[in-house]
Amino acid sequence: MNEFELIRHYFDRRQSVPGVIVGVGDDGAVLAPDPNTDQCQVIDTLVEGVHFPVGTDPADIAYRSVVVNLSDIAAMGGRPRWMTLALTLTDASESWLGAFSSGLFAAADKYNVVLVGGDTTRGDSVVVTIAMSGEVEKGCALLRSGATPGDTIFVTGTPGDAAAGLALLQQREANEYLVGRFLRPTPRLETGRKLVGKASAVIDISDGLVGDLGKLLQASGAGAEISIDRLPLSDALRARFDVDKQRRFALTGGDDYELCFAANADSVVELAGITAIGKVTESTALLCLLNGDVVEVDDSGYRHF
Amino acid sequence: MNEFELIRHYFDRRQSVPGVIVGVGDDGAVLAPDPNTDQCQVIDTLVEGVHFPVGTDPADIAYRSVVVNLSDIAAMGGRPRWMTLALTLTDASESWLGAFSSGLFAAADKYNVVLVGGDTTRGDSVVVTIAMSGEVEKGCALLRSGATPGDTIFVTGTPGDAAAGLALLQQREANEYLVGRFLRPTPRLETGRKLVGKASAVIDISDGLVGDLGKLLQASGAGAEISIDRLPLSDALRARFDVDKQRRFALTGGDDYELCFAANADSVVELAGITAIGKVTESTALLCLLNGDVVEVDDSGYRHF
Repeated sequence: MNEFELIRHYFDRRQSVPGVIVGVGDDGAVLAPDPNTDQCQVIDTLVEGVHFPVGTDPADIAYRSVVVNLSDIAAMGGRPRWMTLALTLTDASESWLGAFSSGLFAAADKYNVVLVGGDTTRGDSVVVTIAMSGEVEKGCALLRSGATPGDTIFVTGTPGDAAAGLALLQQREANEYLVGRFLRPTPRLETGRKLVGKASAVIDISDGLVGDLGKLLQASGAGAEISIDRLPLSDALRARFDVDKQRRFALTGGDDYELCFAANADSVVELAGITAIGKVTESTALLCLLNGDVVEVDDSGYRHF
Repeated sequence: MNEFELIRHYFDRRQSVPGVIVGVGDDGAVLAPDPNTDQCQVIDTLVEGVHFPVGTDPADIAYRSVVVNLSDIAAMGGRPRWMTLALTLTDASESWLGAFSSGLFAAADKYNVVLVGGDTTRGDSVVVTIAMSGEVEKGCALLRSGATPGDTIFVTGTPGDAAAGLALLQQREANEYLVGRFLRPTPRLETGRKLVGKASAVIDISDGLVGDLGKLLQASGAGAEISIDRLPLSDALRARFDVDKQRRFALTGGDDYELCFAANADSVVELAGITAIGKVTESTALLCLLNGDVVEVDDSGYRHF
């Protein structure tokens, strides 16, 4: 199959979807966003050997590529609508593409986002970029910049699991739960929607809790104190690693795609799946406390350069 | 500089632009499209060593990355609005990034499109993906699918120049005009806008005139006859190559980013910079005529797989 046949066979489902006037197959997609909303626009790339090990199941690569974008939409309080895919491949193996498209549509169908276009190219390694649009009520997009001293800092889920899963994957060790958290993380779309009008600042954790919370605080011009002993850790993480490693994964491991946010604690009291881990402060420092003492944390998270 | 400082330094201009509520720097951009329009959404990737030679000036890579997307917007009759950039780099040389961002913003400013977000990653080679949004009056997007027997087929500009320029570049031969047509093609945005309501089908020529016209005809369920002796060829192309090569570049060379379209000839008679090259027919074949005789053309254009 040539490039055009490939696209048609694996990516063109010719669905009829509200708001999608023209999908895959023309020079571009033609879309009718809900005029009562603002559009959230995000883009994220996964590179073979950098963001996932060489040899990762293409279905997992695709699934994760969709989720990392959904997570950005979640962090803005948005509902996902549509996405375009730029796929750079080393060859055009049909089995690879079949698995990739099955993972892509598994995530797309689960989270209600529609593939409306793309570009396939050849390169030296697999590079997957997805650009995604979501919608949020006008003027209500959640930003990083509104955290106010006195707000409580929350995190969803159990951070650290994905980094632990990646470490196991790289050592070719098995742990279905932890490796699964790396390969198929959960975009916190429902929580993001519920935070609209409630959270003062939100970010998703892609580069590590401490590093990403630091970005939220910098955007907000505030500081924070978080308690390491209040970090929500999964049973699987506790069972597999010692306490130091658990904390290191939870504080600086990337790839969780949980949300970290600041809010008045009373306004989010009814939300499930969130844990208070600290407070926003007047200073601009981010302090990590362990049994009340400040400890140093390597806050570099994961940086590309 | 780390990844975040890089983004801020080279790509965050903190412009105030109508419709851009939040630009570069948050989890995503927040945008307010014109509610009286449909949104055109496109995505295109350029890979080092595939779409441009290794060692190409980063300013030209960036400029061309913007233009190839603008060209898709032009082919839909749209006005460009905003774009996101996914940039995979082998290292983070400041001189490379400085040149790249200068080329990016040169094209963005010239054609009035705003960078609103992006993602930088590290990989084995340079891969540049841009996702771009444009706007077109509701229900008026130009598609590939409306060509009708009897329509005249037109092309903008002088196709073949870009492929000739690339061939010279690869042989390390100079020709300012032809090489310039490859490195910095012209997106036919003005012509695209003027074709709204007039052209029955439009495509931009990225993979070669014959191949791309073939896609337009397939989408329209029609055929065509084009006259090779009516192809508009530039003086520079004629001066540098023999007649066979001129025609081969014009018919099957890629990278021109000219528009090829079908229209009632009377409706576009006042448009400058277009040339009639043939007619849409009832058959589904695309015939190339030379002095009235059908000739065979290798219509493969440029395919990635």
